[in-house]
Amino acid sequence: MNSSSTKMYQWIKDLFPLCRSITGEGVRDTLKYFRKILPDLIIHEVPSGTQVFDWVVPDEWTIRDAYIEDESGKKIVDFQKNNLHLMGYSEPINEWMNLEQLNEFLYSIPEQPEAIPYITSYYKRRWGFCLSYEQHLALKKGNYHVVIDSEIKAGVMNYGEIIIPGKSSKEVFLSTYVCHPSMANNELSGPVVTTALAHWLSSLKDLEYSYRIIYIPETIGSILYLSKNFDHLKKNVIAGFNITCIGDERCYSYLPSRDGDTLSDRASKHVLKHLDPNFLSYKWTDRGSDERQYCAPGIDLPIATIMRSKYGEYPEYHTSLDNLNLVSAKGLEGGLQAIKSAISVIEKNKFYIATILCEPQLGRRGLYPTISTKNTRKQVETMMNTLTYCDGTISLLEIAEIIDKPFWELVPIIEKLIDFNLVSECDPVIKK
Amino acid sequence: MNSSSTKMYQWIKDLFPLCRSITGEGVRDTLKYFRKILPDLIIHEVPSGTQVFDWVVPDEWTIRDAYIEDESGKKIVDFQKNNLHLMGYSEPINEWMNLEQLNEFLYSIPEQPEAIPYITSYYKRRWGFCLSYEQHLALKKGNYHVVIDSEIKAGVMNYGEIIIPGKSSKEVFLSTYVCHPSMANNELSGPVVTTALAHWLSSLKDLEYSYRIIYIPETIGSILYLSKNFDHLKKNVIAGFNITCIGDERCYSYLPSRDGDTLSDRASKHVLKHLDPNFLSYKWTDRGSDERQYCAPGIDLPIATIMRSKYGEYPEYHTSLDNLNLVSAKGLEGGLQAIKSAISVIEKNKFYIATILCEPQLGRRGLYPTISTKNTRKQVETMMNTLTYCDGTISLLEIAEIIDKPFWELVPIIEKLIDFNLVSECDPVIKK
Amino acid sequence: MNSSSTKMYQWIKDLFPLCRSITGEGVRDTLKYFRKILPDLIIHEVPSGTQVFDWVVPDEWTIRDAYIEDESGKKIVDFQKNNLHLMGYSEPINEWMNLEQLNEFLYSIPEQPEAIPYITSYYKRRWGFCLSYEQHLALKKGNYHVVIDSEIKAGVMNYGEIIIPGKSSKEVFLSTYVCHPSMANNELSGPVVTTALAHWLSSLKDLEYSYRIIYIPETIGSILYLSKNFDHLKKNVIAGFNITCIGDERCYSYLPSRDGDTLSDRASKHVLKHLDPNFLSYKWTDRGSDERQYCAPGIDLPIATIMRSKYGEYPEYHTSLDNLNLVSAKGLEGGLQAIKSAISVIEKNKFYIATILCEPQLGRRGLYPTISTKNTRKQVETMMNTLTYCDGTISLLEIAEIIDKPFWELVPIIEKLIDFNLVSECDPVIKK
Repeated sequence: MNSSSTKMYQWIKDLFPLCRSITGEGVRDTLKYFRKILPDLIIHEVPSGTQVFDWVVPDEWTIRDAYIEDESGKKIVDFQKNNLHLMGYSEPINEWMNLEQLNEFLYSIPEQPEAIPYITSYYKRRWGFCLSYEQHLALKKGNYHVVIDSEIKAGVMNYGEIIIPGKSSKEVFLSTYVCHPSMANNELSGPVVTTALAHWLSSLKDLEYSYRIIYIPETIGSILYLSKNFDHLKKNVIAGFNITCIGDERCYSYLPSRDGDTLSDRASKHVLKHLDPNFLSYKWTDRGSDERQYCAPGIDLPIATIMRSKYGEYPEYHTSLDNLNLVSAKGLEGGLQAIKSAISVIEKNKFYIATILCEPQLGRRGLYPTISTKNTRKQVETMMNTLTYCDGTISLLEIAEIIDKPFWELVPIIEKLIDFNLVSECDPVIKK
Repeated sequence: MNSSSTKMYQWIKDLFPLCRSITGEGVRDTLKYFRKILPDLIIHEVPSGTQVFDWVVPDEWTIRDAYIEDESGKKIVDFQKNNLHLMGYSEPINEWMNLEQLNEFLYSIPEQPEAIPYITSYYKRRWGFCLSYEQHLALKKGNYHVVIDSEIKAGVMNYGEIIIPGKSSKEVFLSTYVCHPSMANNELSGPVVTTALAHWLSSLKDLEYSYRIIYIPETIGSILYLSKNFDHLKKNVIAGFNITCIGDERCYSYLPSRDGDTLSDRASKHVLKHLDPNFLSYKWTDRGSDERQYCAPGIDLPIATIMRSKYGEYPEYHTSLDNLNLVSAKGLEGGLQAIKSAISVIEKNKFYIATILCEPQLGRRGLYPTISTKNTRKQVETMMNTLTYCDGTISLLEIAEIIDKPFWELVPIIEKLIDFNLVSECDPVIKK
Repeated sequence: MNSSSTKMYQWIKDLFPLCRSITGEGVRDTLKYFRKILPDLIIHEVPSGTQVFDWVVPDEWTIRDAYIEDESGKKIVDFQKNNLHLMGYSEPINEWMNLEQLNEFLYSIPEQPEAIPYITSYYKRRWGFCLSYEQHLALKKGNYHVVIDSEIKAGVMNYGEIIIPGKSSKEVFLSTYVCHPSMANNELSGPVVTTALAHWLSSLKDLEYSYRIIYIPETIGSILYLSKNFDHLKKNVIAGFNITCIGDERCYSYLPSRDGDTLSDRASKHVLKHLDPNFLSYKWTDRGSDERQYCAPGIDLPIATIMRSKYGEYPEYHTSLDNLNLVSAKGLEGGLQAIKSAISVIEKNKFYIATILCEPQLGRRGLYPTISTKNTRKQVETMMNTLTYCDGTISLLEIAEIIDKPFWELVPIIEKLIDFNLVSECDPVIKK
């Protein structure tokens, strides 16, 4: 296990207990944690009531404690034990009621009797408790003391942002979210892998593109960010990823942009195919996270999603079973490597054109066997196939697709061909 | 069984005995029958000898009686019992001949020993009798008296036409034919379903398009109609159907236009796929009716065909077995509904564009659950998928295809979205 | 067996013993042999040292004798018995050495113990002997006398060229190579089939296109020819074939141009599909002969390859097993016919447009049955399907593809339709 994977898993462990929501102390503490790792991370705040396109930034939610006591004073459901027990954005209450009355405010999943469901009601005032179906069934007739020590009032919404400059003002946009309480694959895997990516990108010299990375509350955060930055993003973003559900070991998944054929999509599919030919390929109709905003009609940014087990598709999703056992250092590392590979494709995907008519005489340059046998060409096949497609009409990624080799095998080859002045970088050539 | 299906079947029963051909009293009586149902139906006549493109309107055929008598005076083949016994357009004869001589003028089908074949010779003077192979085999040596009391002389060719005006001068064109004697699926199902469609269209308020509906003799009739109306049709027709073989219960069939991707084609395939995923999809090379003319090179009108069992493909085709037992009220009704659905697609297929950037906040409009659980999106999936594709670049039919839902599920959704000012109709937007 | 097949097999037998290489007496003798059959064949020579794009024409190789003697004076490996025993372009030597020393210069194939491999070293000075693995294993310790009586010095490189003029100055380009010693499928099948094609083309009157046919050493020859004639070829060549590996009976194979969809490609695939639906279709990445130069980036001539068993894919390839038993008169004839068919497609592939709106009345022209039964259309189906696609937007080859009939069935039909003035040749019409 290398150091990045161990670190990422430690970050998840540290952040797991915090009660994040779309506003409040939990999300602020999470952002401050990441700022310790990425000192350039800026934590923004926007006041409640701010209009963002069709939406309004909601009041801030503060939660101090919440529980249900039985008549004997025993806390039978306790927010302190698991913050999923409380419906997100619950309004305050302090009342006694009987089981029948209480039942209207309890949520459990008969099909998953051990799981506490994750439920929220951000935009309509409600309160509620979530518990396992087993726990729910065990409740006896009687009176219960229901206490929620919360506050919903004008405050701020926070999000984090970091810009890592490259040679070009064109940007790659990475977005992840920090609004879910104690769940691991959805969502903590997202911000920790994003943080590892930011760390890696900051360490690289000679980045081709600039990187814009944000940590937001899901949906309202992306709408807010777009409402403030849309013109800039539309003009500059050439590719990007929504980073979520990237920490378990079960599979790789791909969700397209609405367009389906942006550079982000092509890079994602190429990388995943070569990492695991059985990766799961979803459709735009399977969407469910911030790509809903980034690829909305009229917005249409080139944002795709590379995941491990996709939200909504794995049984533990949005329950207490999505915990520290579901993700692993190895799972996180695999997710990180996949997105790194996709970013590397984007960084190095250029057009090349052969400088010499007909095949060059490679033998005298030491690039081709000087003795001709049955198997001569096999030894230099990938180089020959790369070179034959360097006509300037297709990018290196397209060449990799046509010759069915991973992009990263072509990169050292093209560098060698450049060194020997056999190909040169060029603007795309229109095929006649 | 609803009233339209019962009516259609009754019409077929009424019209079945008439001896239709490409000219003559049978086709006139058929058109007059439909004019009783559709008072606006105009019955046109065109004189024999009229040049229509490469063809000439033939002389009119009058048939009064026809039979073969044996030596005992017994009518062994009798036009009065089944008008298929006489080859269409037979010239008059009144002669005695022996069996060997007679045999040259007899037609039967060894592979279908009980069926009387349907045979014509419109453009070359001939006479002939058709009989079942069983009947044919039973003929004994001897002399036979052959009588055909017919006339072929200058007269007229008739066809019917009705225009149902809509808001636009753009037209949907429906064509059916009325030139076959006593056969039910091919052809009476065609004109009776067309008549039910005309009746239904006349009853609708606010038709988007105008409807041009014709009842013609096959081939020569469509060539005649095109020769008189081509410029108008080319300028105005945006879609249309040739209506034939639409009355049995065995299957749905689709035959494309020559182009293969007109609005008529797309509507037909969409509708049939959702009515029965196993519908039969034919190719242009399987054509055989008036689409041969409507889609001829240089004509190229957007005419597709929705059928039940396709002409030429079912065993009873062009024989006496294509009778009142082959079609049914249910079969006709299914055919009617399929074409109605395709017409509804054409009427309502428009382009829509979202009025708000990013997803609108649907919850506060009562369009989205205010409580967020694992399954929230499933409840509003079709609405969300419709909305996400409202970018003005694709039509509602294309959206239905992409999200794999029947068009008619999207219509009420789009109407609701319009009511809430979330989308608006627009001209097609060119995708950048 | 017809005369062309017998002749071709005899030519191979005559030429098999010659020791061809990329230069020297063997290739000259081969070209002179073909000049006896094709008196217009011109034999060109180019001096050693001539720069051709990135390459230089090498010194000429002369080989008189070569053998390895054991201590008893017995020739255990002898060039006179099989010219494959000597590595091509071996430099002279006359030395005694022990087995260990000798082994560094011996080549054999453990996986094919009976086969002598074919090995060359054109551009780096070396010497070597090739022998079967069985022979190699049998060598005993001891001293050996190694003799190669060769010379490598400034001289010339030769190639043959013949132009067969047609009505148009546009050209079909045929290229084959004459640089391999005693092997039959690769390569003698290539030049002998090419010679039979040249003979056939010379005999035809009214060729549409001109034919440019060359016999070259592989790789260096095509680069040389392109360096001298590129502008002319680029301007005039509309199709062409590299002719190689065309003499065995096992299968048909197709290798595309780099573009993959030139007229040569479409003609090749069409012809092979109708000759044998199981023909093998290779990809550009499987290339390995002169198409590497003809389709190099920036060159991009429309050159495809029709073969029988493809080079590199059959076990006997580049060994002594590729001998007179591997090819046959029948195999050569099948190869010849395939390329003749593809050339006929190219010669006769034109655009046609119907002269009459709607279907013409074919019956009165004797082109359509005048009696209409169930099966009327089947009898004239290919004619009707050809005619319906004559709208000027697609070529006759595309029509053949759409209606799934061999091109050669459509040729007499289109000629008849022209005779009846029902279609006429036209310039391509752009589809609206």
